[in-house]
Amino acid sequence: VGRRRQGYHGGRGELVVVVDCTDLERAARFWTHALDYVDAGGGGTRYCTLLPSDGVGIEVLLQRVPEAKAGKNRVHLDLRTADLAAEVSRVLALGARVLTAKPLEEFGWEWHVLADPDGNEFCVIQPPSGHWDEADR
Amino acid sequence: VGRRRQGYHGGRGELVVVVDCTDLERAARFWTHALDYVDAGGGGTRYCTLLPSDGVGIEVLLQRVPEAKAGKNRVHLDLRTADLAAEVSRVLALGARVLTAKPLEEFGWEWHVLADPDGNEFCVIQPPSGHWDEADR
Repeated sequence: VGRRRQGYHGGRGELVVVVDCTDLERAARFWTHALDYVDAGGGGTRYCTLLPSDGVGIEVLLQRVPEAKAGKNRVHLDLRTADLAAEVSRVLALGARVLTAKPLEEFGWEWHVLADPDGNEFCVIQPPSGHWDEADR
Repeated sequence: VGRRRQGYHGGRGELVVVVDCTDLERAARFWTHALDYVDAGGGGTRYCTLLPSDGVGIEVLLQRVPEAKAGKNRVHLDLRTADLAAEVSRVLALGARVLTAKPLEEFGWEWHVLADPDGNEFCVIQPPSGHWDEADR
């Protein structure tokens, strides 16, 4: 399978998102299903490489750490979707927890804050209608 | 300019990395230069959209937050490079701080931990020689 990596700086290097966890297998199960990525393994008991199943896009590297999470993540992933309710249901079924009692809303964007099995916050967020079309002009 | 977004789950949605900061302009200046992204603006005084200057890849959304950083980031970016020393020098000149006195090393990977102007950790990391070639087979 061909693989187009997420470059940065005009091909100078590769950009990767690293996510801390305490249980590599559990985190890999969640994030591969949430994103439709594949577990490319590697990294022994410390790391696990997740790659887009269609070969295009950024690598997510899971990193096992000894310490538990404390405080809110200062870097997080957003999953933008055209159907907030359906997407929230889907990731809840995969083991996420929802942290917001009802959707937050700002400038026509609506979202929920959720947590992965390690408590890492991420958002499922629905842009205002027309967002993707307009950005393509 | 055409724009290929970072999809996830077979086109179901778009994946975005959100980075907290206390000063949008300062963070935008740093990350656009570090990654060769462009500041696409938008989001008023609260958000700032950064996009790859070549139109391909993941959006980085800067989010202004009132609280200062506390504790180590549980999600961070890795900048993989073929030349660790040169890349560390480059991002230091842009306003990063280096947190490691000497490079860390594991399984032939060598890296430094740095912090962006808000203290968000990121790594500049050099894979073992042959890493990219092998992954392409």
